Amino acid sequence: MEQPERVARLLVSCPDRHGIVAAVSGFLAESGANIVAADQHATEREGGRFFMRMEFVLEGLRERHGLLERDFARAVAEPFQMDWRITPATEHKRLALLASRDDHCLLDLLWRWRRGELAADIVAVVSNHPDHESDVAAFGVPYHCVPVPAGGKAPAEARMLELLVGTDVVVLARYMQILSRDFLERVGVPVINIHHSFLPAFVGADPYRKAHEAGVKIIGATAHYVVEELDAGPIIEQDVARISHRETVEDLVRIGRDIERVVLARAVGRHLDDRVLVHENRTVVF
Amino acid sequence: MEQPERVARLLVSCPDRHGIVAAVSGFLAESGANIVAADQHATEREGGRFFMRMEFVLEGLRERHGLLERDFARAVAEPFQMDWRITPATEHKRLALLASRDDHCLLDLLWRWRRGELAADIVAVVSNHPDHESDVAAFGVPYHCVPVPAGGKAPAEARMLELLVGTDVVVLARYMQILSRDFLERVGVPVINIHHSFLPAFVGADPYRKAHEAGVKIIGATAHYVVEELDAGPIIEQDVARISHRETVEDLVRIGRDIERVVLARAVGRHLDDRVLVHENRTVVF
Amino acid sequence: MEQPERVARLLVSCPDRHGIVAAVSGFLAESGANIVAADQHATEREGGRFFMRMEFVLEGLRERHGLLERDFARAVAEPFQMDWRITPATEHKRLALLASRDDHCLLDLLWRWRRGELAADIVAVVSNHPDHESDVAAFGVPYHCVPVPAGGKAPAEARMLELLVGTDVVVLARYMQILSRDFLERVGVPVINIHHSFLPAFVGADPYRKAHEAGVKIIGATAHYVVEELDAGPIIEQDVARISHRETVEDLVRIGRDIERVVLARAVGRHLDDRVLVHENRTVVF
Amino acid sequence: MEQPERVARLLVSCPDRHGIVAAVSGFLAESGANIVAADQHATEREGGRFFMRMEFVLEGLRERHGLLERDFARAVAEPFQMDWRITPATEHKRLALLASRDDHCLLDLLWRWRRGELAADIVAVVSNHPDHESDVAAFGVPYHCVPVPAGGKAPAEARMLELLVGTDVVVLARYMQILSRDFLERVGVPVINIHHSFLPAFVGADPYRKAHEAGVKIIGATAHYVVEELDAGPIIEQDVARISHRETVEDLVRIGRDIERVVLARAVGRHLDDRVLVHENRTVVF
Repeated sequence: MEQPERVARLLVSCPDRHGIVAAVSGFLAESGANIVAADQHATEREGGRFFMRMEFVLEGLRERHGLLERDFARAVAEPFQMDWRITPATEHKRLALLASRDDHCLLDLLWRWRRGELAADIVAVVSNHPDHESDVAAFGVPYHCVPVPAGGKAPAEARMLELLVGTDVVVLARYMQILSRDFLERVGVPVINIHHSFLPAFVGADPYRKAHEAGVKIIGATAHYVVEELDAGPIIEQDVARISHRETVEDLVRIGRDIERVVLARAVGRHLDDRVLVHENRTVVF
Repeated sequence: MEQPERVARLLVSCPDRHGIVAAVSGFLAESGANIVAADQHATEREGGRFFMRMEFVLEGLRERHGLLERDFARAVAEPFQMDWRITPATEHKRLALLASRDDHCLLDLLWRWRRGELAADIVAVVSNHPDHESDVAAFGVPYHCVPVPAGGKAPAEARMLELLVGTDVVVLARYMQILSRDFLERVGVPVINIHHSFLPAFVGADPYRKAHEAGVKIIGATAHYVVEELDAGPIIEQDVARISHRETVEDLVRIGRDIERVVLARAVGRHLDDRVLVHENRTVVF
Repeated sequence: MEQPERVARLLVSCPDRHGIVAAVSGFLAESGANIVAADQHATEREGGRFFMRMEFVLEGLRERHGLLERDFARAVAEPFQMDWRITPATEHKRLALLASRDDHCLLDLLWRWRRGELAADIVAVVSNHPDHESDVAAFGVPYHCVPVPAGGKAPAEARMLELLVGTDVVVLARYMQILSRDFLERVGVPVINIHHSFLPAFVGADPYRKAHEAGVKIIGATAHYVVEELDAGPIIEQDVARISHRETVEDLVRIGRDIERVVLARAVGRHLDDRVLVHENRTVVF
Repeated sequence: MEQPERVARLLVSCPDRHGIVAAVSGFLAESGANIVAADQHATEREGGRFFMRMEFVLEGLRERHGLLERDFARAVAEPFQMDWRITPATEHKRLALLASRDDHCLLDLLWRWRRGELAADIVAVVSNHPDHESDVAAFGVPYHCVPVPAGGKAPAEARMLELLVGTDVVVLARYMQILSRDFLERVGVPVINIHHSFLPAFVGADPYRKAHEAGVKIIGATAHYVVEELDAGPIIEQDVARISHRETVEDLVRIGRDIERVVLARAVGRHLDDRVLVHENRTVVF
């Protein structure tokens, strides 16, 4: 395998036009880069918005990164009005995890990270409960308990914002407090949540109870970017499990845990690999 | 295999109490019946409602059916306050199909019926369009075209009620007209519908467009008994398919057809085999 | 949507090298073509084999097709040692269906074709049984019954080869005769088969019985290109269904039919859309 | 919910005959027990083998357990030639885990156990590597490292047999050594293994590499009871995941981990809840 320090990813979003692929791939070829993976998507066959992700190998990437960006901006990005970024594969995002009492998503992400599945630096775990302190310590990650007493959301969020300074992405690994609009604006980085239903069904609290009452034959979980409206942000990943009349609400909670942790892990992994682009409250996941 | 004329099904629903299984199975054993399949469900561990389905083999069932019912009523059903019925396996339900322009559910059910998968007599196909006449004729089933012009729902429903006299179950195989409360009351038999979404998400018209706009990563279909509230009746069966940002609304329609026909066929098959019991807007599917 | 007569697909397979994407997309851009979909795959990160499919829109495609191919061959294909082809989207493949007694795959493909899901001309149905004659006639497709009596495979295959002259692809829609090596060589076009197991498990006859005896909890179906070795050709598509101890062999056959027809339809659809490339007994399915 | 100390399970396997359900349920009713769940299965409609699991609630179960067993043996089990057992729900099985380098199944089972999902006492973890010592210590479970050097299988197995004295079930949570026939005979309790393929495909070493080479579009995992023949024992549970040409062998290993741990956990859970019965190398899983 190529050394990862030679690998970078280019992400592009722009109005769809004639010649984009040729311009980008021509630029990379002339720069000596070799494209090893490419995905593209257009929202319409003609005249919509165009999205592209290219993974390329370039000798001396570290030294040439700055110049490459300057040249790309001038030669390609500006003429095509692109939103774009070039990210070296070695540039790990700084990730913080928020969790409440349930530990299944939290432990699953920490364990995947330890075994090298997640290309991130996990810099902090924040919880409104003290429960996971020793578990998290075993992974060598700082644990911050920030209780949210009734009426104390504002100071708790202020404390959390201090702790989250410098992170690139926040993951709500079954964090059961609703974050305020103010918090979301000030944190300034993408926040990924796992909701324990097959959205848009069963928004809000207690979705497994609602699913049981509705008598559905399949339950699910949804990972999405957090927006101000509850459980309404762009969906990154979903999965489901079959149930029957036999399962109690407690069974659904137990079965759901297995879906939740996998759906969240997939969503986080794709975000970290720069595979998710957002457009009008929907995602393109390459 | 046993001759089907010796096989019957007993369905029971009653308040949960001590000794139900013993009473029922004791009665059957004393009657000389052999239980070949049994399912039971209680809504609570204790004190809820109890549901049971038993399939049994009995020599001379045809002659003894009437007496067996009388004895069961007196010896078991009354003391336990049971809703119950005993149905010989050879007693095929009379089924009518309603369809609009789309033919995938209609043809699939006719074809399963012809190959012996559905234990029913299909007595009529009714459509608000003439399109399927020759297809249906090939199966030897009467085809009735009952158009529903703007403002003409009442006479159309009246005509349909005439055509449906004597049926035991009506299946809406993508029938795209909303049936009135009056129609549902007067038809007097269970009506099974296939809705092209994963209910309770995307009730009503154009669910694939809504799913596309919501950016879900999985679409589904739902078969349910029709009640007056639109797409809100007891769910019998659901299934799903994975999609991505690549699929257009037209792709969802196409992918969805494969889910719809299988979900509807499973629901109809289970209804015909007396496997579905309804309780408080949910189903028990044995 | 663009008019289909302006759309074409370019398929490429070549040794992986620096600059392929740039060369191809540059050529298309200079020719005035607009790339509307693109997929690529390399068997190794560097030094393997490279596969690409591009769908593009070009004004006056019909008139310019010949010249475009000549120019592409000289300017791009030869320097990069490409296997390649450019296929106008309107150029439907001529497809023949072979079937034995079971009709579920046969009818499903005919339904889809009539509905416009399959971009093909179905030119013939050939069967070793007369059973499906009237069903097939309703679709306006010629039906040829070629019995294969014991000891009569050679003349039957000779007759079939005559009937298949001019077809672009042959689909075995549950055709239960083993085709000889000689037949496969002489037919000279891809042959797609549906095998009713999750290959490589349960090769050969009676796979549902074998699955039942093995006590598996999931059954499957596999669509693959036919090679001389039985059930061993490149796999195009597979799918599965969950079963339990309750299902008899007959139940597996019935459940399996629903998987078989969908798996075969997906495989045929992708083949017709020029989405399948074969490399060392495996497929790349774009 | 009822107190678990009043709940027991009855498992029965016997030649199928008239009156079994009546005899068993009549006995339980007369004993004052209330049946809260029941499953039954017959291998043939008539004349095969009959399996049953009943969960019942009985006041004073602890004191009456011995007498209940004596009475059941005499009144029901002997006349019907039953293999049977009655197990109080509070009687946790003693479970030992064996693991090699990979930790995903091991940790997943320990997590579930700590969370109360597994009705067992985990009494030991045995590994041929020292790697998991501190992880396992955090769960308060003894960790025994028993290396298996080349040529040293016999003494290693002897040491393991000493450590496993008193266990009721042994779970191979990705233990990569083949256990000898002698070991399996002497350990004397069920041994559950997780094999990282969709058996019977890809028996033995390196199944993900074999799956990649075969070009399958779906991979799987299989939990089964261990018998002398490698990967050939009765299958308890299987599950699968969809893959494509894009995934490398390393990707399959990663994706497979998520299937393996869930399949193994389901199989172990059902074994612990006395839901698995074995018959002629197949399982009945209630």
